[in-house]
Amino acid sequence: MEPIQVGLFGIGTVGNGTFQVLARNQEEIRRRAGRGIEITMVADLDVERAKALVGDRAKVVSDAREIIANPDIDIVVELIGGYGIARALVMEAIAAGKHVVTANKALLAVHGGEIFAAARDKGVMVAFEAAVAGGIPIIKALREGLTANRIEWIAGIINGTTNFILSEMRDKGLDFAEALQDAQRLGYAEADPTFDIEGVDAAHKATLMSAIAFGIPVQFDKAHVEGITGLQAVDIRYAEQLGYRIKLLGITRRRAAGIELRVHPTLVPAKRLIANVEGAMNAVMVQADAVGTTLYYGKGAGSEPTASAVIADLVDITRLQTADPSSRVPHLAFQPDELHATAVLPISEVITAFYLRLQVADEKGVLANITRILADCDISIDAVLQRESAEGECQTDLIILTHETAEGSMRGALASMQALPTVLAPIVSIRKEELA
Amino acid sequence: MEPIQVGLFGIGTVGNGTFQVLARNQEEIRRRAGRGIEITMVADLDVERAKALVGDRAKVVSDAREIIANPDIDIVVELIGGYGIARALVMEAIAAGKHVVTANKALLAVHGGEIFAAARDKGVMVAFEAAVAGGIPIIKALREGLTANRIEWIAGIINGTTNFILSEMRDKGLDFAEALQDAQRLGYAEADPTFDIEGVDAAHKATLMSAIAFGIPVQFDKAHVEGITGLQAVDIRYAEQLGYRIKLLGITRRRAAGIELRVHPTLVPAKRLIANVEGAMNAVMVQADAVGTTLYYGKGAGSEPTASAVIADLVDITRLQTADPSSRVPHLAFQPDELHATAVLPISEVITAFYLRLQVADEKGVLANITRILADCDISIDAVLQRESAEGECQTDLIILTHETAEGSMRGALASMQALPTVLAPIVSIRKEELA
Repeated sequence: MEPIQVGLFGIGTVGNGTFQVLARNQEEIRRRAGRGIEITMVADLDVERAKALVGDRAKVVSDAREIIANPDIDIVVELIGGYGIARALVMEAIAAGKHVVTANKALLAVHGGEIFAAARDKGVMVAFEAAVAGGIPIIKALREGLTANRIEWIAGIINGTTNFILSEMRDKGLDFAEALQDAQRLGYAEADPTFDIEGVDAAHKATLMSAIAFGIPVQFDKAHVEGITGLQAVDIRYAEQLGYRIKLLGITRRRAAGIELRVHPTLVPAKRLIANVEGAMNAVMVQADAVGTTLYYGKGAGSEPTASAVIADLVDITRLQTADPSSRVPHLAFQPDELHATAVLPISEVITAFYLRLQVADEKGVLANITRILADCDISIDAVLQRESAEGECQTDLIILTHETAEGSMRGALASMQALPTVLAPIVSIRKEELA
Repeated sequence: MEPIQVGLFGIGTVGNGTFQVLARNQEEIRRRAGRGIEITMVADLDVERAKALVGDRAKVVSDAREIIANPDIDIVVELIGGYGIARALVMEAIAAGKHVVTANKALLAVHGGEIFAAARDKGVMVAFEAAVAGGIPIIKALREGLTANRIEWIAGIINGTTNFILSEMRDKGLDFAEALQDAQRLGYAEADPTFDIEGVDAAHKATLMSAIAFGIPVQFDKAHVEGITGLQAVDIRYAEQLGYRIKLLGITRRRAAGIELRVHPTLVPAKRLIANVEGAMNAVMVQADAVGTTLYYGKGAGSEPTASAVIADLVDITRLQTADPSSRVPHLAFQPDELHATAVLPISEVITAFYLRLQVADEKGVLANITRILADCDISIDAVLQRESAEGECQTDLIILTHETAEGSMRGALASMQALPTVLAPIVSIRKEELA
C-alpha cells in the first residue's frame, strides 16, 4: 500500500524533529501502522532553510494553502503556533477534508470548541497529543486509558521552563531573576519567556485536560492563572523546612459546585513522587475513583519528545484509515505479519553491572586477589566498600560495585573468587542498573 | 442505541470490581463510549455468591459456555486466570466471534501467539490492558502512545506484592520471611505467594511488554526469572549506604545481538523516580529514542484499579464497534453531544490550604492577633513556624500553614492581617495541596 501523505505547516524545532524521527524510524513506524507515513510537503516562510532541512525528500512551499489544495495529502500537521494564521489554516484544512495534527495548545484552549465542531461536521480528526506535556501520552491516558473512571482531579507539572527555574532556585538558592537567566542561557527559556513564567502556557494545557477529564467545553477564559515571577527564594527555603517543595502546578478539580481550573505556585509534600520531578521534566498526576492515583512522567517539550507525540497521532489516524477496524491496534503493537523472530538472549549474554558482597578473612592481600580475578575477567570496578571489622573480629564484609559486564564473565569470576580460601561464605551477587 | 452486552467469566475480586464500577459510573462511561455497556451475564461456579453480588442486574450461570452461546453477547471478559479452562473458554469465545477482554497475563505470556492468531482469523479483538500493571494504561502507552519511537528498554516494578515486601524490609529492617508474613496479614500477598515472590508473575508481564515494545512474539519460556526469596536485609542496608535501593524489576532491552528479557532483584540509584515507588504501587519506565525517558505509575493490582483497565478495554471495543470511525475517540473524550456546561468556579470559591509568610514585629500578642483573625474567618491552622529573631532584631518571620479554606475567606483574612500595625511587609501567600 502507498504511504499516507502528510503535509507539514512550519518546520521549526518540532517540525524538524517530526521530519527526522519519521525518516529515521520509518521502518518501525510502518510495521506498527500497517502503512508508511511520509511528509511529502512542507510549508514554511523560510523556504531556503526548509529546503536545507528536508533536501529532496519533500516539496517545500512558502504557502501552506498549496498543501491544503493538494488532494494527495490526507493529514496536515500544524506546528506554526498562536491564534492567527494557524487558526485560519487549521479551519481551511478541515474544510478541505484533511485530518489535522497539532501541538498548538493556545489555539485549542481558546478556539477548541469551534475547531472540534468543524472537524465533526467534516468527519475528520483533530489530534493534539503533542499539545499537552510533550512526549508523555497523557491525552491518550485521559481520553482512552481512564474511561472507566470518574476523574476527581488532575495536578500537573506541565511547563518545563518554570519547573527548571524552580529546581534551580531550590538547588542553588537563586532568586527568580538569576534562575531565569540560567534557564535562558541553557535554552530552557525563550528570549521572551512571558507565556511560560506567567503560567499562561500551563493554563492552556490545564484547560485542555480539564475539558477531557470532566466532559466540559474548553474554557480558558475562566482559568485562574498565576506564574512564578513573584516567588522568593526565602519561601522555597521555609517550605523545605516544613517538608514541602514549591511547584508550578496546573490543577483542575471537580467540586460539587463546579470545576476548579487554576495554575499557580503550590506547596506539595516533598515525599510525593511529583515533588521529585526536577529540571525541565513534566509529570501529571490523575486522581480517579476506580484506579486511584496514577502519574505520567517524561519530557514535556523539545524537538523529538514533542515529535514523538505528533507521530503517535499520525499513526493513530493512519491505523484508523487503513486497517481492518477489528485489528486497528494490533495485539502486539506491530502488525501481525511484521513481527520479527528476534532471539531472546540467554542470561549469560545479558549485560548488567553488579553488586557483590563477599565475607572475607580480614587479612592482607585479600582485596588484591579479588580485584585481580575481576580484572582477569575484564570486569572493572566502580566502587568498593569495606566494613570496618570490630575489635578482635577476623572477618569482614567486602562490597564491590562493578561496571557493566556480560553475565557469563561475572559467573566465571564468581566461581574463581568463591574458590579463594579467604572467601568465607557464598558470595552474594545482585544485578545493578543505572536506568539512565 | 441499545447498550452493548458483556458476559463475565468469573466474578472474584476483579470481576466484582468490574461489575460495580460499570454500574456506578455507567453514565460517565456511556457519555464517553457513545453507548451503554452492561454486563448482562455472569458465569461462576459459585452461583449463589455470584447472585448475591449482582442481584437481578445480570443472569448468573454456572457454565460459561452459556454465555458464549448467547448471540446477544458481543464481548466476554475472562477473569478466571490460569492456563486451563480459561484458555479453552477464550479460544471458544473467539471461535464464536466474541471480542475478549482479559486480565490473564499467564495465559497470554504463554499462549498469546495462538490466541492472537485465532482472533485475527475471526476478526475479533483480544484486549489485555489489565494484564500488565493493573490500572496503569501501560499497554496503551506502549502500543499507541509511543509508536514513533524505537524503544530501547523497559524496566518496571510490575508486581505489587514483592515491592511491598521490599519496602517493608527496607523501612523496618525486616528479613524476607518476616516481611512476607506482614504482606500476607495485610492482604498484599496470597496464602501461596509463589508466583509473586519467585518473579513469575512479573516475568509474564515483562514478556508481554517485551513483545509489544520490540515487535517479537511472546516468549515467556526464554525469560530469565529470579525472585526475592533469597534477598537478605544486610544487602538492602549496604545498597542504601552506596546510594541505591533494591527493587524487583522486570527488564527487557534491545541489544545488537538480541533481546534481554529478565526479572531479578536490582540495585537502582536512590535518586531515580522509580526507586521511590513504595509499597504495593507499580511503575514502568520506558526508554525510547525520540521521547527519551517516560514513566507510568499507579496501582498494579486490586479490585477497582484492575477493573479500570478492564473497562477501558470495553470502552475501546465499544467505540470501535459503534462510532463513526472518524470520531471513534471523541476530541474531548466525551461524545460531543454529551459535553456538560458545568461552570468553572471563580477563584474565590476555590478550596485549598495555604502557606503564609508574615514579617512581623517581634513583640507580645502578635501571634494572638493573627490567629484570632484566621479563626474569625473560619480558617484553621495546621502548623506554625517562627524564625528565631537575632540579637537586637525587632522583627521576625512568622510562617503559617493552614488547613483547607475557600479562597474568598483567605482573602478576607489576608486583608485584616495586613492592616495590623505589627505586620511590617506585604504578606506572602502560596497555595498548598496535599495531593493525597
